[in-house]
Amino acid sequence: MRAIVIHSAGDLRIDEMPEESPSEGEVLVELRAGGICGSDLHYFNDGGFGAIRLQQPMILGHEVAGTITDVGPGVDGLSRGDQVAVNPSRPCGKCLYCRKAQFNHCLDMRFYGSAMRMPHIHGAFRERLVAKADQCFPIAAGASMQEAAMAEPLAVTLHAVRLAGSISGQRVLITGCGPIGALCVIACRLHGAGEITVTDIVDEALRYGERAGADRTINVATHGEEFSAFSAGKGTFDTVIEASGNPQAIAAAMAATRPGGTFVQLGIGPDAPLPVSLIVAREIRYFGSFRFHEEFAFAAQLISSRRVDLKPLISDVMPLSDALKAFQTANDRARSMKVQIAFA
Amino acid sequence: MRAIVIHSAGDLRIDEMPEESPSEGEVLVELRAGGICGSDLHYFNDGGFGAIRLQQPMILGHEVAGTITDVGPGVDGLSRGDQVAVNPSRPCGKCLYCRKAQFNHCLDMRFYGSAMRMPHIHGAFRERLVAKADQCFPIAAGASMQEAAMAEPLAVTLHAVRLAGSISGQRVLITGCGPIGALCVIACRLHGAGEITVTDIVDEALRYGERAGADRTINVATHGEEFSAFSAGKGTFDTVIEASGNPQAIAAAMAATRPGGTFVQLGIGPDAPLPVSLIVAREIRYFGSFRFHEEFAFAAQLISSRRVDLKPLISDVMPLSDALKAFQTANDRARSMKVQIAFA
Amino acid sequence: MRAIVIHSAGDLRIDEMPEESPSEGEVLVELRAGGICGSDLHYFNDGGFGAIRLQQPMILGHEVAGTITDVGPGVDGLSRGDQVAVNPSRPCGKCLYCRKAQFNHCLDMRFYGSAMRMPHIHGAFRERLVAKADQCFPIAAGASMQEAAMAEPLAVTLHAVRLAGSISGQRVLITGCGPIGALCVIACRLHGAGEITVTDIVDEALRYGERAGADRTINVATHGEEFSAFSAGKGTFDTVIEASGNPQAIAAAMAATRPGGTFVQLGIGPDAPLPVSLIVAREIRYFGSFRFHEEFAFAAQLISSRRVDLKPLISDVMPLSDALKAFQTANDRARSMKVQIAFA
Amino acid sequence: MRAIVIHSAGDLRIDEMPEESPSEGEVLVELRAGGICGSDLHYFNDGGFGAIRLQQPMILGHEVAGTITDVGPGVDGLSRGDQVAVNPSRPCGKCLYCRKAQFNHCLDMRFYGSAMRMPHIHGAFRERLVAKADQCFPIAAGASMQEAAMAEPLAVTLHAVRLAGSISGQRVLITGCGPIGALCVIACRLHGAGEITVTDIVDEALRYGERAGADRTINVATHGEEFSAFSAGKGTFDTVIEASGNPQAIAAAMAATRPGGTFVQLGIGPDAPLPVSLIVAREIRYFGSFRFHEEFAFAAQLISSRRVDLKPLISDVMPLSDALKAFQTANDRARSMKVQIAFA
Repeated sequence: MRAIVIHSAGDLRIDEMPEESPSEGEVLVELRAGGICGSDLHYFNDGGFGAIRLQQPMILGHEVAGTITDVGPGVDGLSRGDQVAVNPSRPCGKCLYCRKAQFNHCLDMRFYGSAMRMPHIHGAFRERLVAKADQCFPIAAGASMQEAAMAEPLAVTLHAVRLAGSISGQRVLITGCGPIGALCVIACRLHGAGEITVTDIVDEALRYGERAGADRTINVATHGEEFSAFSAGKGTFDTVIEASGNPQAIAAAMAATRPGGTFVQLGIGPDAPLPVSLIVAREIRYFGSFRFHEEFAFAAQLISSRRVDLKPLISDVMPLSDALKAFQTANDRARSMKVQIAFA
Repeated sequence: MRAIVIHSAGDLRIDEMPEESPSEGEVLVELRAGGICGSDLHYFNDGGFGAIRLQQPMILGHEVAGTITDVGPGVDGLSRGDQVAVNPSRPCGKCLYCRKAQFNHCLDMRFYGSAMRMPHIHGAFRERLVAKADQCFPIAAGASMQEAAMAEPLAVTLHAVRLAGSISGQRVLITGCGPIGALCVIACRLHGAGEITVTDIVDEALRYGERAGADRTINVATHGEEFSAFSAGKGTFDTVIEASGNPQAIAAAMAATRPGGTFVQLGIGPDAPLPVSLIVAREIRYFGSFRFHEEFAFAAQLISSRRVDLKPLISDVMPLSDALKAFQTANDRARSMKVQIAFA
Repeated sequence: MRAIVIHSAGDLRIDEMPEESPSEGEVLVELRAGGICGSDLHYFNDGGFGAIRLQQPMILGHEVAGTITDVGPGVDGLSRGDQVAVNPSRPCGKCLYCRKAQFNHCLDMRFYGSAMRMPHIHGAFRERLVAKADQCFPIAAGASMQEAAMAEPLAVTLHAVRLAGSISGQRVLITGCGPIGALCVIACRLHGAGEITVTDIVDEALRYGERAGADRTINVATHGEEFSAFSAGKGTFDTVIEASGNPQAIAAAMAATRPGGTFVQLGIGPDAPLPVSLIVAREIRYFGSFRFHEEFAFAAQLISSRRVDLKPLISDVMPLSDALKAFQTANDRARSMKVQIAFA
Repeated sequence: MRAIVIHSAGDLRIDEMPEESPSEGEVLVELRAGGICGSDLHYFNDGGFGAIRLQQPMILGHEVAGTITDVGPGVDGLSRGDQVAVNPSRPCGKCLYCRKAQFNHCLDMRFYGSAMRMPHIHGAFRERLVAKADQCFPIAAGASMQEAAMAEPLAVTLHAVRLAGSISGQRVLITGCGPIGALCVIACRLHGAGEITVTDIVDEALRYGERAGADRTINVATHGEEFSAFSAGKGTFDTVIEASGNPQAIAAAMAATRPGGTFVQLGIGPDAPLPVSLIVAREIRYFGSFRFHEEFAFAAQLISSRRVDLKPLISDVMPLSDALKAFQTANDRARSMKVQIAFA
């Protein structure tokens, strides 16, 4: 079985790995589609991010969908031939935070394709994957496997929107229009946002934001003064979802947030010199948003029922054999949005 | 009538000012006590803070209480001889934010002793003050005027605690044990906190925190490792109220905040390099808290009914003629906590 | 000018009324469409409801839209020829609750077509209406005036959904599929509901629920056992919006609400023997929802931008001269959903 | 070992029961104090309540404290001689609701002294009790065992106050001044209530409410008009905690609740004809509150640290041999508040 393995920064290989078979409560999934995420790119480009560094070869990937080809004993409700989106999040279920149902804060998390612990947790970019039955969420026959492989990033944005609280009728700003930012547009539209503005520094990225349903797109590199107008008075936006992690973007978005507004930080970046006195004077509510839990099921349901259309965000689908090219393409924001690997 | 006027950094004078008399809906208050606040000290020491700079002489002071000596026409419920705490906050009642009942974000606020607008809004450190009747909150005869003059900073902390949401049974950290931090201890105790830890870098300040009811005090300058222990695992504190504005204190307190914890920023300071990735990974809820509104009435009620005891926090009371010395004393955290002027 | 006036139960007349002209801050609206609401029907059928009884002739109607034909002095942003939806809610802006921004609880409310006070407040079913400029919300040229006249009931349901809090991905039950129930389906879909079930006792009504986007409709009169299944275990629904006011419907829906679920009561009916011990044992959160305030602007925006399609809910449009027949039609739930009067 | 066993309505016996010894993770507790609760009285007086009926003899009691006399293997942090309050709530930890951390809604709950399931779950009114270590919460040596035995009802009221949200500075009404109502007074005071009014129909009960810290007590049987005054305008109270379960009390308290107010239903009673149209028109937030979970630890901490004084609420302490008399005394609200059994 072939898998996409990162050995060190820049050293991405298609390696042969041993087959596995499902035990009690598990299924075997033959992968169809796998999306490349920003964290996959960090391992590929830099060998990690922040304090998290590659220390051994690791299979990448955590946005995957496929077809069940074998079912272990004791599995109910899943059968051979079922299409499923696979949840890459595997909390322990026993620690302090799992017992409080804060599963995304599990002290013993085993998230696919993460070098946070030793040995690293292998990812899901492989031809066949053994997963627990409760990681697998059925996708109706009519829905595409490419979209199904976007259940994970969609879940990330559904979580952020839930943390934001009611956005009904609000003026919403989304900063950063990569795949997560563009999915935020879809998630905010789906939750009753009044008017959605999205910013980026790449025109091509913003075009995807438009397709996702944004009411207004602004290139803050070329049209900074247009954006600054939203900072007049005491700011404009009721809710901001920050999806870039860029310190300048954070500061500019804060200046455009109205008193009592909600600012959800989704993008991860370096320590940023935040405008503390502005946060105080405007009583901004600044929330971190990290991964997801129950939102994965909702994401799969939305895709399965075709109530969201994610296809416009999938810019490239490349065969497993072109994995390296796929990663290089994903690196080029002026050319691509979500790049996926077709495993079969 | 004498008033305490700041002319420029370091140039504090007792000036003679014209008497005023109450019009429709107003009362004349003969001041008894006035507390020196951090912002008064900023004008005294530095001529302002951040972008706000003194441009003309200004009467200082916004923490005051006194006795009504004259009542204008159309005033109900207040009489000569009544003791009152005076609310220094005067929102316009007409702007966008006032109409939404977000009065502390008024676009046309006239807060006592503030150089935020031109001409500056004079403060309340004067022998006699004309105030609107609805700024005046009765204080029962048995309660002290010194305590009454602490209604304003108490209201600031009640507001912060309300923004924090339920702290019932929680492990609470308060960083910075000046008058606001120490009042936070009292406010948190009053709202069902489980265990209160307070930190500072001055032992004398921490002793006031103890008297205010803290369960644990830590000098982070001398006992940093004791405090670091609270950052183990994914942190300890359910709720933090940051009352120092110091970037290092903010960062250290964040590291000690548990996943999903609430962090209320009350202290104002320079832009701080905040740990964005920690805020995200722990989903910290970071709220700015700014002044107060309806909490002033509650503060006055608490003082009037003697359900809180604020006397232990008043370290010095000096006559008006010693105003300069009073400001110098207030500058010395190793010697004083709340310093008040006795006007009569 | 003709107007639809109720004189007493059953006595509906088209009366000639004097023309009015706009003063400072007002506009003249030539009505296009007016929807008949349940409260209009109560006046028509019973001369009132509960303690509210007709004591003098009153113009009915509060769901209206039209075209501006004259503009008084001091009006900005509105011009002759503009299409507008008219907000029938006119809080005083000065009472205790208006000052707290709880405008729908105004102590001196002047809501169109209401016999709550003496003299009664006339409604808007008339050929021409003088309204305050800030009651008028522009509707884009491409949107229909029939839909614009549904801004009010849509606002009622947007308010209910906002009170419910996040319904993201939830199993939602809506009981009662009249115009309000059907609009709740649209509003819940718009705010990220996971799966929407709607119940009624009239099949024809439920068909409108389907068209509005419900995932499942149940006639509880003929398929009671199908509905009872949702009460198994400790119930099924995360959120219920009760839009019938019927005591039996309330009790049945409570039994189907899961522990910690939210139950928004929107329908008004007689005192109902509520299952107190069930509310306690399941910790159901039972919220009353009354009218709306800022939601009117959002409703108008949704209609104007055509992000909702309300046309399928408008079953009948009849000319002003057929007003009596229109009210009779609106009374017959097996035949009609929203019945509107075409004024021009 | 002797235990207090209910055989049928009115048939309360002191029976000899077999000794037990602690297994892995368990301790043996020698009981000191046990409080008689309303549900114990329901079994004693009526053989049950609602649909829950005694079908076999059952040991009563779930408000207990004692001293550890033996420690099973694998127990950390508890030793012989430790004083503990024992949590009678034993959720399964595995069901749908436990996995969501809604432990008080466990589908397989084993609560002490409950006939909800067959065989019934025996209670804790016995000389010696084997409990799991994690049910036992240490009580400092200086605190009384009588107070420790009130950790359970105190936890019930802490849970109700937490559900109410912030009550800071609010006007709070508590209806029903039995042990739960009186503890609500203490819990509300502890969480920053502004002004606390408590009602009952028995003067003697209200005197306990005063001792607990209420600002105002009203006998609604003899001073109904005094209470009605609070219904003027649109009502007075920001938060109500209903601790009687009496339908008349519920209706009267609703009428006194202001628009947007919170009404926590804690008392269990028959189905009550609730004023649905009032709940709607005032947008009352009516919450059921059921038992507790994490609040037990906080209750034990409050008692242990002596930050609450519960002794004034313990009206009678009787030896085990007088159990029958203790139950009879607890039945007489004009004579007793909390009646406890002294086991040793």
